Amino acid sequence: MDTTKMNQPVVFRRVLLAVDEDDQRSSARAFRYATTLARDYDVELGIVSVMESEDMNIFDSLTPSKMQEHRDRVQEIVGEYVKAAEEGGIKKVTPLVYEGGDVDDMILEQVIPDFKPDLIIAGADSDPSHHQVTAPVGIRLARRAPVSVIVVR
Amino acid sequence: MDTTKMNQPVVFRRVLLAVDEDDQRSSARAFRYATTLARDYDVELGIVSVMESEDMNIFDSLTPSKMQEHRDRVQEIVGEYVKAAEEGGIKKVTPLVYEGGDVDDMILEQVIPDFKPDLIIAGADSDPSHHQVTAPVGIRLARRAPVSVIVVR
Repeated sequence: MDTTKMNQPVVFRRVLLAVDEDDQRSSARAFRYATTLARDYDVELGIVSVMESEDMNIFDSLTPSKMQEHRDRVQEIVGEYVKAAEEGGIKKVTPLVYEGGDVDDMILEQVIPDFKPDLIIAGADSDPSHHQVTAPVGIRLARRAPVSVIVVR
Repeated sequence: MDTTKMNQPVVFRRVLLAVDEDDQRSSARAFRYATTLARDYDVELGIVSVMESEDMNIFDSLTPSKMQEHRDRVQEIVGEYVKAAEEGGIKKVTPLVYEGGDVDDMILEQVIPDFKPDLIIAGADSDPSHHQVTAPVGIRLARRAPVSVIVVR
């Protein structure tokens, strides 16, 4: 074992925090970890939320005003996290709002190529009844992402 | 959003690094991240490897000398990581060698109650052909552990 090489630090420089509009309790702790890292290591922080069109029922998704309402809510939530990060002294924060199909597909296919994070931070779903069919986004990203992923509990 | 509360840091104090004797490349990067954290935040670091009895074929598992050989190899690997951590300036490192069934079951049922980590660090399996049936240990822990889990790539 080459101990010199083994003791080279691994530091993340571009951190992507995935927040879930429906799971603010779990996202809040992930946010606190993300901002701790950002303060301690001077990282670039991206805060992303994906507006999942599949979350809406067919009637709402056909109604432009309902879509806009949903879009505004996601924008607002990401904006609140960005503001809280800035108030906490984080200088480089980027709000990222995307819209599309599955959250994990969107993050893998669009957000990662755009933002190029080396670490993704996600909360663990705090409501187990919430994801009966699919695993929480953090777990799906941990399995599929090409970069490191932390699921914060 | 209560921004004062939102800006309380989240710092991990007891970190468990899970190393895989069969996947040293992926474990090495996880090790480098674990020791970076341990140096920067003065954490207690546990380095665990589980000797999976199910990994052995039935003939070997009935042969005490083969079992002992396997046990010695796992002990030695954990010992090497502990030594490398100490040479890297980490003061509080604990070697943890367990023996039993599935790695993730052992970690969940025995190692976590014993060591009480608040963060588990695992490598991503670097050889995709290696786990065709089950997900890598880090992913399984991310899904099932009661504490935060980072899968390092």
